[in-house]
Amino acid sequence: MALSFFMRKSSALRFRNLFNRSIAVLHNQHQIPHQSITSSSSSSLSRFLSSSSSSSMASSDSSFPVTVHNINPKVLKCEYAVRGEVVTIAQQLQEDLKAKPGTHPFDEIIYCNIGNPQSLGQLPITFFREVLALCDIPSVLEKPETPALFSSDAIERAWSIIDAIPGQATGAYSHSQGIKGLRDTIAKGIEARDGFPANPNDIFLTDGASPAVHMMMQLLLRSEKDGILCPIPQYPLYSASIALHGGSLVPYYLDEATGWGLEVKELKKQLEAAKKSGISVRALVVINPGNPTGQVLSEENQRDIVKFCKTEGLVLLADEVYQENVYVPEKKFHSFKKVARSLGFGDNDITLASFQSVSKGYYGECGKRGGYMEITGFSAEVREQIYKMASVNLCSNISGQILASLVMSPPKVGDESYELYRAERDGILSSLARRAKTLEEAFNKLEGVTCNKAEGAMYLFPQIKLPQKAIDAAKAAKTAPDNFYCRNLLHATGVVVVPGSGFGQVPGTWHFRCTILPQEEKIPAIVNRITEFHKKFMDQYRK
Amino acid sequence: MALSFFMRKSSALRFRNLFNRSIAVLHNQHQIPHQSITSSSSSSLSRFLSSSSSSSMASSDSSFPVTVHNINPKVLKCEYAVRGEVVTIAQQLQEDLKAKPGTHPFDEIIYCNIGNPQSLGQLPITFFREVLALCDIPSVLEKPETPALFSSDAIERAWSIIDAIPGQATGAYSHSQGIKGLRDTIAKGIEARDGFPANPNDIFLTDGASPAVHMMMQLLLRSEKDGILCPIPQYPLYSASIALHGGSLVPYYLDEATGWGLEVKELKKQLEAAKKSGISVRALVVINPGNPTGQVLSEENQRDIVKFCKTEGLVLLADEVYQENVYVPEKKFHSFKKVARSLGFGDNDITLASFQSVSKGYYGECGKRGGYMEITGFSAEVREQIYKMASVNLCSNISGQILASLVMSPPKVGDESYELYRAERDGILSSLARRAKTLEEAFNKLEGVTCNKAEGAMYLFPQIKLPQKAIDAAKAAKTAPDNFYCRNLLHATGVVVVPGSGFGQVPGTWHFRCTILPQEEKIPAIVNRITEFHKKFMDQYRK
Repeated sequence: MALSFFMRKSSALRFRNLFNRSIAVLHNQHQIPHQSITSSSSSSLSRFLSSSSSSSMASSDSSFPVTVHNINPKVLKCEYAVRGEVVTIAQQLQEDLKAKPGTHPFDEIIYCNIGNPQSLGQLPITFFREVLALCDIPSVLEKPETPALFSSDAIERAWSIIDAIPGQATGAYSHSQGIKGLRDTIAKGIEARDGFPANPNDIFLTDGASPAVHMMMQLLLRSEKDGILCPIPQYPLYSASIALHGGSLVPYYLDEATGWGLEVKELKKQLEAAKKSGISVRALVVINPGNPTGQVLSEENQRDIVKFCKTEGLVLLADEVYQENVYVPEKKFHSFKKVARSLGFGDNDITLASFQSVSKGYYGECGKRGGYMEITGFSAEVREQIYKMASVNLCSNISGQILASLVMSPPKVGDESYELYRAERDGILSSLARRAKTLEEAFNKLEGVTCNKAEGAMYLFPQIKLPQKAIDAAKAAKTAPDNFYCRNLLHATGVVVVPGSGFGQVPGTWHFRCTILPQEEKIPAIVNRITEFHKKFMDQYRK
Repeated sequence: MALSFFMRKSSALRFRNLFNRSIAVLHNQHQIPHQSITSSSSSSLSRFLSSSSSSSMASSDSSFPVTVHNINPKVLKCEYAVRGEVVTIAQQLQEDLKAKPGTHPFDEIIYCNIGNPQSLGQLPITFFREVLALCDIPSVLEKPETPALFSSDAIERAWSIIDAIPGQATGAYSHSQGIKGLRDTIAKGIEARDGFPANPNDIFLTDGASPAVHMMMQLLLRSEKDGILCPIPQYPLYSASIALHGGSLVPYYLDEATGWGLEVKELKKQLEAAKKSGISVRALVVINPGNPTGQVLSEENQRDIVKFCKTEGLVLLADEVYQENVYVPEKKFHSFKKVARSLGFGDNDITLASFQSVSKGYYGECGKRGGYMEITGFSAEVREQIYKMASVNLCSNISGQILASLVMSPPKVGDESYELYRAERDGILSSLARRAKTLEEAFNKLEGVTCNKAEGAMYLFPQIKLPQKAIDAAKAAKTAPDNFYCRNLLHATGVVVVPGSGFGQVPGTWHFRCTILPQEEKIPAIVNRITEFHKKFMDQYRK
C-alpha cells in the first residue's frame, strides 16, 4: 500500500522533518495507478517496488512473450498522472455521454487536467498559422489569389523562412540541431528578451520541450546513484524521465505557506542529505513560472539559485516554457541565463539548459510539438555527445521548428499583422489572468481549501484538508485520498483535474491541479458545479 | 585501436567463423569517430571501451561540471554514422565552397549519406501538401479564392480531417496514440494493403519511425543481458538505440553472396550462441526492404522468419518504412503482419511491431516527422505500459499524424487530384528504379568493387576490396580503411557516402552506403566523378 496511507495521521511538518534527509523515488502501484511521490530511503523503496510489481500483477498476460514481469522495470516505475487514471475514466464518461446523452449529471467533460489551451477552444494566433500554411505549400506564394487570403507580412516571412532552408526543401531532414536560419532568428529573439548575446549553435530545436528534458536526463544519469534535484510539487515529466533513465529524484520542497517559495536553504539541506545517502547530484530543475504551482520567482531569488548551482557544480535545468504566462503586474519573467549573465557568470561559470516550447505562452500550439533548449557552459566534447544524441533522431519536425522561430520573433509594430497579432495575444493573456483570479477566489471560498495565487503558468494547485472519513473511504476504495476526491469530482461534475500525488506533495497533505484554461464564459458554471460538489462531499464525510 | 585492424589480414570467412559464437557490441573510439560493428565477447569489448574512453580523451573539459568522464557511458557508446565524421567534414567543405568558390575540385556537395530525398530536389506530392496547408489554416477553407488555389478533394479531405479532431482543435495535444479518426484511416489503409483486419487501437502515431523504435527498445531492454537480434549490415538507429538503452546487439549476418539473403539457419545459430553467452534475446529486427542492403524478402523467407519468432518467443520488430520502395518486377512487398495472418497466426501466436514512416516511399517527407507503429500480440497489461510511455511525451506532431494518414490513404481513381498524384508518384518511383540500376552498374564496373542490386529501399551497399597499401595508409591516418576511402572520395568529388563500418560488415570486408537519390540528370556526372576518383585511388595504392 502507498506509504502515504501510513503517514496520513501525522502532520505535514512532522513528516517533512522525518523524511527530509532522504531521497524520493517514484514507486509504482498497480492498485493505485497514480504515483505518490513520497520520501523514503531509496533502498527500502526499491524493495517495496519489486515486491509490489511481482505480487499484485494479474497473470493474464503470461501467455505472451512480453509480460509486465519481463519488461524494463524502469518503464513500470515511471508514472505520468497528467494522463493517468482520472483522465482514462473521463474518456470513458465522454464516450458514455456520446452514446447515451443524459446518463450523467453533466453535458460535457471539461478537461482541466492538462495545459492544452486549444482543446478548450483557444484559437491559434492567425499570423503564425498563415506562415505555417504557406511554408507547407510554397507554390501558392506566387499565385495572384494569395494576397486575398494571407497577410503581406506572413507571405514575406514565409519567403524568408523558405529561403533559409537549404535548397528550399521544406520536406527534408534538417541539421540535427534544427535549421540554422531559424536558430539565428531564435538567438536574436533571446537576445532581445535578455539583453545578452545568444549563440545559434547553443540552440537545439526539439519536438516540444519534453524530448529536450529526456536528452538532458539521458546525458546526466548513469545509475540510481545519480540524482536530480526537483521541486515538490513538480511537473511529472521530470519524475517520469528520471525513472525511465534510471536515476534518483532528489526532492526539494516548495514552501506552500509563502506562495510556493523556493528557498536556497532547502536546496542546500536536500543536497547535503542526498550526498550523505551516497547520491551524486548532477543537476537542479527549476520550473519558472511554476508548474503545477504557478509562482513566478523574483530576480533576487533566481540570483541565489544561480550562485548555488555555480558553487555546487550543478547543471541548472531551467524549465522556462511559461515565460510569456505572467499575470500579476508586480512580477516579471527573467530567464536564468539573463540572471547568470547579469551576475557576470559566463560559459565557464555556470552550466545551464533552458527549455522553451510552442505549447504554452499565449500561442498554446501543443499539437505542433515545437520547442528548443539553449545550452551554455558545456564543454566542446560534451556538446559533441549531445549533438550525437540529437542526430540519432535526425531532426525535430520542421513545422514545429518554424513555429519556434515565430514565437521568438512575432510581428512587430508596423507590420500588417501587428494589430491583429497584438489583439489576439493580449486578449488571451488578459483573459487567462482573469480566469486565474476567478478560480483562485472560488477555491479559497471552499471549506477546508486554501489556494495560492497563480502568478503565472496555467494552473492552480489548491490544498484540500480532507475529513478523516473521506480518507478512510479512499483507503477502503484502495486509492489515495486526493485521487478519491478527484474521481468523485469528475463523476459529479465532468470536471477533470489531476490529484496532487501525481506531482508530489508534503506527505499527509492533499492537493489537485486545475488548469485555468476553460473558456471564460464557462468559468461561472464550472465554479458553481465544483462548489456544489465540494459542499456535498464535505457534508457526506465531515463526521 | 579498432579490432578490425588486427583482423585485416584474415579472410572474412575466417573471422566470421572465429567470432560468430559471440555477441557484437558497439564500441566507441575517439580516434575513429565511426563505430565498427565487430564481434567479440561483450566483456572483453567493454574493457576495451572503458580503457579507450578514459585514456584518449582531451582534458580540456575538466573545468566543467559535466565532462565526457562523468556523463552516461551509454551515450558515449552510442554511434550514428549516417550523420558522423564524413558528414561533418562535408559541412565544413560546403562552408568553404560558399566562402571561397573554386577552392575545391567540385562545385557542390552531393549528400548521398542519408535517405533525404527532398534535400536533393525531389518535390513533395502536391495533394499531401495542400491538405496539410489547409489543416494549418482552416479559416481559409471557406474563402471564395480557395478553390482557385487548392484542389477540391484536398479541401474535402482537409474538412474531414478537421472534423475528426475533437473540437476541430488542430493545435491541441491529441490522444497519446494519435488522433483516433486518423488511426481509423490508417487501419483501413493497412487492411487494404494486407487483406487482413487492422485495429486503430493497435496504432501509435510517432514523430517518424525512430521514436517508435526507441520505445520498443526501452520497453524490452532491462540490462546488457537482454539482446536484440539485428541484421549486419543494419541501419544504425538500431545499434544506437540498443546502446542508449543498455542492451546487447546480437548480430546475424546477411549473406552478401546471395544478394544479402536472410537465412533462418543463421538466425538460429546466432540465437543459440547468444543464449550460451547468457544473453536473453528479446526480439528480432528485420528491415524489409533492406537498409543499407536494398534486398526485398520473398514471402516464403518471411514465413520462415515469422515461424522462427513464434517458436522462439521473440518479438518481431519489422522495419517496413520502405514498403513503397520496390524497384524490380519480380519482387513485391508483403508486410510481416500479412504473412503472419496468412499462416493463421493471430494475436496469441506472434508478437509484432511494424514501423512505418512518412520519410520514405515516394513521398519522402523527412522533415514532417510522421510515422506509426502497429503493435499486435501484446497483452493488455503491456499495452498499458506502452501507452504510458507514449503519454509522457503527450503526442506526436499533428502535421506528421495527418501526413501518416494521407500516405496510407492517397487520392483514388476519380478524385480531382488522382491523375496528378499518380503522375508524381510514378515519376518518382520509376526514376528511383532507373537511378538504382545506373549506379549499381557503375559501381560494378569499378576495379575491386562488387555491388548487389537495389531491389528496394534507397541505397546501394557496394563492397570494395581495398589494396593493402590503402589499408596501411588508413592505419597511419588512424582511421578505418572504409572511412579512409570515403573521406578521400569526399575530398576528391564532393560526394558524401557513409563507411560500411557504420552499419556493420563481416570483419575484414569494406563497404560504403550510397543513396540512389541524387536527381537523375546529375547521375552521369556523379558516376564520372566517382569512377575517376576510384581509378586514381587504386592506382595510388595498388602496389
